[in-house]
Amino acid sequence: MTQTPKTIAIIGSGLVGSLLAIYLRKLGHSITVFDRRPDIRNVKFSGRSINLAMSNRGWKALREVGIEGQIKELGIPLDKRAIHVLGQEEYYQKYGKEGEAIWSISRGVLNRKMIELAENEGVTFRFNEKVWDINLPEGKIYTGATEKGAWEEYTYDIVFGCDGAFSRVRHKMQRRSRFDYSQDFIDVGYKELTIPPNADGSHKLEKNSFHIWPRGKFMFIAMPNLDGSFTCTLFLPFEGTESFESINTREKAEEFFATHFPTAVDKIENLAEDFFANPTSALVTMKCYPWTYWDKVALVGDSAHAIVPFYGQGMNAGFEDIFELNKIIARYGDDWEKIFEEYQKERKPNADAIAELSYRNFMEMSSKTADPNFLLQKKIEKAFANKYPEKWIPSYSRVTFSDQPYVDALAIGDAQEEIMKQVMQLPNIADIWDSKEVEDTILRLL
Amino acid sequence: MTQTPKTIAIIGSGLVGSLLAIYLRKLGHSITVFDRRPDIRNVKFSGRSINLAMSNRGWKALREVGIEGQIKELGIPLDKRAIHVLGQEEYYQKYGKEGEAIWSISRGVLNRKMIELAENEGVTFRFNEKVWDINLPEGKIYTGATEKGAWEEYTYDIVFGCDGAFSRVRHKMQRRSRFDYSQDFIDVGYKELTIPPNADGSHKLEKNSFHIWPRGKFMFIAMPNLDGSFTCTLFLPFEGTESFESINTREKAEEFFATHFPTAVDKIENLAEDFFANPTSALVTMKCYPWTYWDKVALVGDSAHAIVPFYGQGMNAGFEDIFELNKIIARYGDDWEKIFEEYQKERKPNADAIAELSYRNFMEMSSKTADPNFLLQKKIEKAFANKYPEKWIPSYSRVTFSDQPYVDALAIGDAQEEIMKQVMQLPNIADIWDSKEVEDTILRLL
Repeated sequence: MTQTPKTIAIIGSGLVGSLLAIYLRKLGHSITVFDRRPDIRNVKFSGRSINLAMSNRGWKALREVGIEGQIKELGIPLDKRAIHVLGQEEYYQKYGKEGEAIWSISRGVLNRKMIELAENEGVTFRFNEKVWDINLPEGKIYTGATEKGAWEEYTYDIVFGCDGAFSRVRHKMQRRSRFDYSQDFIDVGYKELTIPPNADGSHKLEKNSFHIWPRGKFMFIAMPNLDGSFTCTLFLPFEGTESFESINTREKAEEFFATHFPTAVDKIENLAEDFFANPTSALVTMKCYPWTYWDKVALVGDSAHAIVPFYGQGMNAGFEDIFELNKIIARYGDDWEKIFEEYQKERKPNADAIAELSYRNFMEMSSKTADPNFLLQKKIEKAFANKYPEKWIPSYSRVTFSDQPYVDALAIGDAQEEIMKQVMQLPNIADIWDSKEVEDTILRLL
Repeated sequence: MTQTPKTIAIIGSGLVGSLLAIYLRKLGHSITVFDRRPDIRNVKFSGRSINLAMSNRGWKALREVGIEGQIKELGIPLDKRAIHVLGQEEYYQKYGKEGEAIWSISRGVLNRKMIELAENEGVTFRFNEKVWDINLPEGKIYTGATEKGAWEEYTYDIVFGCDGAFSRVRHKMQRRSRFDYSQDFIDVGYKELTIPPNADGSHKLEKNSFHIWPRGKFMFIAMPNLDGSFTCTLFLPFEGTESFESINTREKAEEFFATHFPTAVDKIENLAEDFFANPTSALVTMKCYPWTYWDKVALVGDSAHAIVPFYGQGMNAGFEDIFELNKIIARYGDDWEKIFEEYQKERKPNADAIAELSYRNFMEMSSKTADPNFLLQKKIEKAFANKYPEKWIPSYSRVTFSDQPYVDALAIGDAQEEIMKQVMQLPNIADIWDSKEVEDTILRLL
């Protein structure tokens, strides 16, 4: 169905905001993107800050508007985990089948490119312009230098809130009656650190791997950048024995890394300085409903469903919102009320599912990795999946390398878990884990 | 322990705000209560709007500061439910033992009295003064005529947010990192209506009863006022076959009441007019954590834990917050950081428990009352409780007529439910429900 051109404001020039701008511009709409921050293309940064893992859903959304190739040039494919266990050689776990990989991309580098591509399509960007208020039924937005100062009023046919987990647009919707909302922080925070390149520009760790140092209640990860560096993240409880609170001197920071991450400690740049100079950030799961207001306002991406990063799906889920919204627009043409209604009905359960999957992955990493039963279960699953790849696709592959709805990936994962629960109750399971009996049990239960 | 006098601001002059003012004033602090609304003593109202059910926890908190007697004069004790089933005579269920009752009190009448009592203690009230912002670490509050206009700044040693479910104080705390928050609306709304007194001032329905017309997915209730009237509330889904949405003409409103509430319809004042003149309100469960900020700011009552009204415990829980806070103050003297830390640690689980109990009561009323198995189970429980009153105290009595922590009331209720689940699985339970076998089974499982 054809579209009558609308004037559309997008609040937020991040990854989701700029991709949505490209999609809507291609449909013939007039697009203005507002952002309270300056143009990221004029902001100096190392090109290393916070790395994303682009996977199938993200690529699919980029492909639809013909920009997959240009973005791939910014990334490095990672086809495996490199696991660093204390006192062992680093070893590798393939993510999926041959050719399957997640891509490490710097958020800043990607965002610059996306804004450039959107501008090339004819999207207008208004940087350094903060939206303080929004009149939902009339599509009016109010910007200005300060909350108490003079405001500029703009009127649009449609307003999209792509302004992230602490969305101002959602904030306005939240004050309405019958708006369900929750924000839940986990007790683990994170801090970015850097492993610089070798003198010759090469990577200090294996380049095409997602490096992980799992340590039960905390972990350290490293993702490669094009310049030969790695962006590293320490996930650690805020309080407790091993925690951001307890590491309160340079000596303790150095000792903590030397003890727990001996294969990384010497590679990290300015460890003790950066540890205290870089912020400790919190991690939140944010859910809300409804996501839309009449035919006027809609939330897309983190503003509608912020999740913890342990499945690497935050950006991918946001891009999938846009891909699916675009399909719904194609179905309903100018009926934006219907479009928004379908959009939120279809996407909400999937957003809840990836939130749940991401939270579980955090639980798994933080508390189950030390449980021998859990490790045995994973070993059995893996052996079975290797032998019967069509009968047992691991959850990780469903989420990362397919475009199956998240809600189905979660349900199938639950069914698999139910089967494994029964398998793990077989007598002497630790001894017979690779027996025909176990294999037949799974086949029977499937 | 003695207290150093502090300057304390309380935001909100509702029931919790004014009772907290009385408590803190008695400890020697200088108290100012801010409210955006005018002084309720100067506002004309019928004395009928929204009735509260004061029960044991509420009375206990009032008794502690010597005002129980004065408040009892404003209320009417209800010792039973009067149940109006279609096509049957109205019948009665005693709430508890002899002398146990909940008290019907008009919110407006009670609030006026509480403000008067607080003023008599030397509390200062600043009405018509809306708090727009708060500086949490410095205890500064900002008031003014409009959000964008000039603001007045006040500095206090301590600030209490008693400003209800949509608290401005909490709203400020919510923008901080690591603040957990949720608001969940149910699909049922409510509307107030009135049954006026007889010409001689007497009540048109039995005076000392909580009148209820249960109808599965919806219900109608009536609570008596001192002037002979009843304040009535219709609880009804917003959408669906029988819903606020579907009752969209005067004829439909009258037909709905005549069909479902034939024993009430002729008694209601201006039914069709009021049905459309009075607002349809939503019901929310609101949870958050933390409730306090350093030794500076604390939330009390609905601002910390708004619940649905189906257990009649909202105000009682808020008053209990104050009673318990007062005990903690007595323990820790001037250490307000410790006081606030203990307060939130002790009260949060109890607030979650009464939220859960209240929500379950809604589920029970809205979907289980038509289930014969559920009714049979309740019959068995009642028979057993009558025979063994020390062994089986119903949840309702624990919550309403004791001061057992809500968290324990919930846990014991769960344990009782677990027992009843097993009892209900006995073969032919419908035939043998009042047998010795059933009785012995419960005794064995207890």
